[in-house]
Amino acid sequence: MQKLSMLWPCLAVGAIFLIVACAGFGDEGMWLYNQPPRKQLREKYGFELSDAWLEHLQKASVRYGGGASAEFVSEDGLLLSNHHVGSGAIQKLSSAAHNYMRDGFYARTLAEEKQCPGLEVNVLMSIEDVTARIQAAVRPGLDDRQAEEARRAAMAAIEKECVEQTGLRGEVVTLYQGAQYHLYRYKRYTDVRLVFAPEEQIAFFGGDPDNFEYPRYDLDICLFRVYENGRPVRPEHFLKINPKGAAENELVFVSGHPGRTGRLLTVAELEHYRDVRLPYMLSRLKSLEVALAAWSERSPENARRARQDLFGIQNSRKVRDGEMAGLLAPSLIDEKRRQEQLLREAAARDARFAQAAGAWDRIARAQETLSRDWVRYQLLEGGNGFGSSLFSFARHLLRSGIERAKPNSERLREYSQGRLPSLELALFSQQPIYDDLEQLKMAEGLTSLATQLGCNHPLVRQVLAGKSPRERAAELVAGTRLKDAAYRRKLYEGGAAAVDAAKDPMIELARIVEPEARALRQAADVQNEILRQAHAQIESVRFGIYGPTYYPDATGTLRLAFGVVKGYLEEGRAVPHQTTLAGLYQRAAEHFHQPPFDLPARWLERKKKLNLDTPMNFVCTADIIGGNSGSPVVNRNGELVGVIFDGNIQSLVADFVYSEEQNRALAVHAAAIVEALVKIYDARPLVDELLGRRRPR
Amino acid sequence: MQKLSMLWPCLAVGAIFLIVACAGFGDEGMWLYNQPPRKQLREKYGFELSDAWLEHLQKASVRYGGGASAEFVSEDGLLLSNHHVGSGAIQKLSSAAHNYMRDGFYARTLAEEKQCPGLEVNVLMSIEDVTARIQAAVRPGLDDRQAEEARRAAMAAIEKECVEQTGLRGEVVTLYQGAQYHLYRYKRYTDVRLVFAPEEQIAFFGGDPDNFEYPRYDLDICLFRVYENGRPVRPEHFLKINPKGAAENELVFVSGHPGRTGRLLTVAELEHYRDVRLPYMLSRLKSLEVALAAWSERSPENARRARQDLFGIQNSRKVRDGEMAGLLAPSLIDEKRRQEQLLREAAARDARFAQAAGAWDRIARAQETLSRDWVRYQLLEGGNGFGSSLFSFARHLLRSGIERAKPNSERLREYSQGRLPSLELALFSQQPIYDDLEQLKMAEGLTSLATQLGCNHPLVRQVLAGKSPRERAAELVAGTRLKDAAYRRKLYEGGAAAVDAAKDPMIELARIVEPEARALRQAADVQNEILRQAHAQIESVRFGIYGPTYYPDATGTLRLAFGVVKGYLEEGRAVPHQTTLAGLYQRAAEHFHQPPFDLPARWLERKKKLNLDTPMNFVCTADIIGGNSGSPVVNRNGELVGVIFDGNIQSLVADFVYSEEQNRALAVHAAAIVEALVKIYDARPLVDELLGRRRPR
Repeated sequence: MQKLSMLWPCLAVGAIFLIVACAGFGDEGMWLYNQPPRKQLREKYGFELSDAWLEHLQKASVRYGGGASAEFVSEDGLLLSNHHVGSGAIQKLSSAAHNYMRDGFYARTLAEEKQCPGLEVNVLMSIEDVTARIQAAVRPGLDDRQAEEARRAAMAAIEKECVEQTGLRGEVVTLYQGAQYHLYRYKRYTDVRLVFAPEEQIAFFGGDPDNFEYPRYDLDICLFRVYENGRPVRPEHFLKINPKGAAENELVFVSGHPGRTGRLLTVAELEHYRDVRLPYMLSRLKSLEVALAAWSERSPENARRARQDLFGIQNSRKVRDGEMAGLLAPSLIDEKRRQEQLLREAAARDARFAQAAGAWDRIARAQETLSRDWVRYQLLEGGNGFGSSLFSFARHLLRSGIERAKPNSERLREYSQGRLPSLELALFSQQPIYDDLEQLKMAEGLTSLATQLGCNHPLVRQVLAGKSPRERAAELVAGTRLKDAAYRRKLYEGGAAAVDAAKDPMIELARIVEPEARALRQAADVQNEILRQAHAQIESVRFGIYGPTYYPDATGTLRLAFGVVKGYLEEGRAVPHQTTLAGLYQRAAEHFHQPPFDLPARWLERKKKLNLDTPMNFVCTADIIGGNSGSPVVNRNGELVGVIFDGNIQSLVADFVYSEEQNRALAVHAAAIVEALVKIYDARPLVDELLGRRRPR
Repeated sequence: MQKLSMLWPCLAVGAIFLIVACAGFGDEGMWLYNQPPRKQLREKYGFELSDAWLEHLQKASVRYGGGASAEFVSEDGLLLSNHHVGSGAIQKLSSAAHNYMRDGFYARTLAEEKQCPGLEVNVLMSIEDVTARIQAAVRPGLDDRQAEEARRAAMAAIEKECVEQTGLRGEVVTLYQGAQYHLYRYKRYTDVRLVFAPEEQIAFFGGDPDNFEYPRYDLDICLFRVYENGRPVRPEHFLKINPKGAAENELVFVSGHPGRTGRLLTVAELEHYRDVRLPYMLSRLKSLEVALAAWSERSPENARRARQDLFGIQNSRKVRDGEMAGLLAPSLIDEKRRQEQLLREAAARDARFAQAAGAWDRIARAQETLSRDWVRYQLLEGGNGFGSSLFSFARHLLRSGIERAKPNSERLREYSQGRLPSLELALFSQQPIYDDLEQLKMAEGLTSLATQLGCNHPLVRQVLAGKSPRERAAELVAGTRLKDAAYRRKLYEGGAAAVDAAKDPMIELARIVEPEARALRQAADVQNEILRQAHAQIESVRFGIYGPTYYPDATGTLRLAFGVVKGYLEEGRAVPHQTTLAGLYQRAAEHFHQPPFDLPARWLERKKKLNLDTPMNFVCTADIIGGNSGSPVVNRNGELVGVIFDGNIQSLVADFVYSEEQNRALAVHAAAIVEALVKIYDARPLVDELLGRRRPR
């Protein structure tokens, strides 16, 4: 599944991923809406991208939560995305008694729609290039730390101004790894309600074994409705579904939020990623996967509670395994080295690029420094050494008390004024917290802390307080009051004094960790500033050679990709461009209907009602990555013909390279959505709304 | 499951595990048959161990394969063990068409019994203390390497003499970690046939989640028959089954082959184990578990092929996780440190122990050296970097060509004359080898090699030959001819010349690795010699203080343990001493008959025929560890009342400490065996044979 993994380390890695690719590479590219691929589309497909067409797609596109995609699909704010994107929300709405993950959900009336705790969605309203202002703030002569502080302060100021002047949430996005800075202005919605979800069984038919595989047969969709002031929102733009879908070889577009790529990392960065970061991430993911899988097997209720975590972990593990396999193929690194050599030679040769000549070495040194601290950073600042979401609450409470007392410009970025509303939404939302699951995850975290840093590390001794990881986790989870959302709000509103007075054991744990975590954060921020400056210099070389026709690396912000509906060759075998409902039943039968290839009861009962020739999933050449899950696939008319939900296994190295021959984006076909809603789920009113024939009641 | 893990690193770790515990610790102890716990049994239970009683139990006990336990249970050579011990053999006899793991197996006549490829069993006929001869060979003044060579040569000579003089296989066992050396003489049998196996579903009811848990409900048994000269063997001693079993608090004995313990490792050794070795082992196991589990889910046939590997890995993972949890509890290490301090002070104080004073530091230094090379050793010499059994064949062929050309005394230990027959049996046996599974495992191995040593390591480059791990694994597995047992025999018989001429790609790979692997082996052997000498000195201190009433650490050789049938307290809750068939059905119902809590069809159909009050599993306080699986539990009369198959979760730290309050050995009750054979499996003839009422036909 192409959902942006929540496990992606948010802070330190973010900054190391440089992007930029050369134009004219076929269907490659995750393009900025304010730098769209007009030329490519005109030359390759004879298609003229109009401003109106772009605006329509941009404003119908929705950023879901922290890192996935969705789109408005009715005039009354119906929002379409993937089931695996919505599953976090569905899981939070579920209980042992109402298991919507297993059984699905359908609200037949507006009144039955269920509000999702802690969920926000954002619509990109406008983009402004603020590069000059940001770069001006970083005056010549500042040392690396001063430069980092100045840049952070400038970003915080711009974001604060944005909300004050326009009422829109502002986000300064670092593009081309530091060469450009754009202000994204979002309309933010925080009342999102669940309308429809199929059973996870059919949404994720084939489970982990079929994840990232194709041919596929997943009805990986769910529907929400966005509200404002207690009423369904009427979005300025929405996409009309076209159940005919797209024909083979037809041009299609994908508009969504690819999370991160690192296609033009320097070779040194790729090697550090391969040799230091990926092994750590993989080891951690596999350890968690084994723990959660074993715990899930112990009872159906355990399995239900751990479902969402386990899915996320298995999904990330498959991505990282794929990345590792790609990076261990000498051909990939060799090609990267060759490309880099060309740039380095150009930089050495051309006086215009004098500044850039040392940039690669500066990056290598900064990476070396980051790698040295990488595991400690992940454990202490990244929170991997603690594992529990209760620890995250504790840290946010501790830090927000400290940070909110500072001027906006000096705060850690996530506590700057423009960003606090999202933090507060997450912190105050009601959501089920299971002591047993939290203890399990925290024991895993503490075990990794002790084994990675060593039992005799002074901080580890302080953290464990003379107990084993399991005992300590049990004590902390049982003892903290942070499970209570109202209590969290009370402490937050009381500020540092209330947080200190609480003497909550989880907050006290966060306090123990704070000095070292902060020191790691500060050190990494400085190195990341060095990377930004060096990458900006390298970009100047690349621009000089290839011209300005690039797209920046993915940053979790809205991008436009394009391609055609098209099969591919796998080990000499032709893989078709689409699958059908008939194929779904056939695959289930081949696997004797054994999980995860079993079908929900109503899919078995209603098979006869279905038109089995209905297309179910299809593939196209559009360039996507984790975070694109839930993106609309639209045709030249801007009609919705499908919903992205995955990439094929060949695309797992898409972090680093795109191949038009091999990479495919997987989508749920519009026809399957309509067919299933009507014939399996008795949800004709929803289809009528999608087709513009009916308003919801 | 208490099966000795095949993944236990055979060579280097072996030598670091010191054993010895103090007498009078209740039911603790894995006692030597030639140093039995007469005093303890007399004083605590008023039981006199007679020589005849001991000989009977010793010679009815059987070492199964490389590291598990079994026992003769009829005058016609019927051999009882666990299903999970026999599962390797059952798996090799199975195919997609005849899935005996899933469906079970029962040979109603001798003619239907199925010979198990590559399986040998051994019966211990006598023990001789050869300490004086071994120690004499290691003359004063030798340096560490010379000492190691002299010791190895002396062992090889004694083992060779044994077979020449008695016809029995000889094995010099290092006891008390180097303080004593005993020659074990075995009668070896290589014609072992499968007679009966239940479905894995009931043998391993509850699967990985219930593994090492209690209460349990597993019919974890299977029956073989040992043949000699084409006819059932008539063993000198066998155990008669007593279906009444043992009562609560009754004294019972366990006679089996505990694999390894490290209860009196020095603190430095425990810390190295915890900080270097366990993390590596756990990371490797979890990585393999995830890979095999994901692959298994892709199809039922994949699952069948990978079943045995996956079981072994999950079992080991649970053991190692338990060890890590134990070693991360400060109380355990603190107590070890306290005990060690007493010995060190005694050594410093008492002139008799002058030599021993520096022993702890010598051990710490040797461990430091071993730890430095630990991962490389596991990857290259241990074979973890290659993963495939085809690589093991290749290495054995390469090395046997080299080693057999040397004098017996100079060979690597596993190629010495006394040990070659077992190697040959394994090398020449027919067994199914699946290209896809071998490729998967080899790609995992090569990936770990590349990530641990680094892609730019010259040896890694040579091994991967410019390909990715997956590509290289596919090429090697497809290209090698070593899947053919007859070809392996031909190369072996042709010696080094034939092996060289073969140019088999897998052998050529082994050749690339050979210099570095051998260097690591040699270096480790030298360090292990230092450990042996230092541990012998520490033992002299311990003997001086506590007297000679110890048992040595487990070494995979026959030991006698004792205890009583007895429940225990778990988090304040009383856990009963036995379970019943009724409990089995209840547990399945509680889990809605979902795997791994589902029951075989005939267990559901025939429920009404069963006496549901029949005891199914029971626990006793006897001191066991991995390798004890399949051990007989006998009463004072030497009658079989159960078969050991597991330990409880509390016993997972039994490598390091035993607790009479908490540790429990789990056994299948004799009554359940009889009840199931008669009423579920229509196998009354087998029961009649077990009861001595019928001879097989």
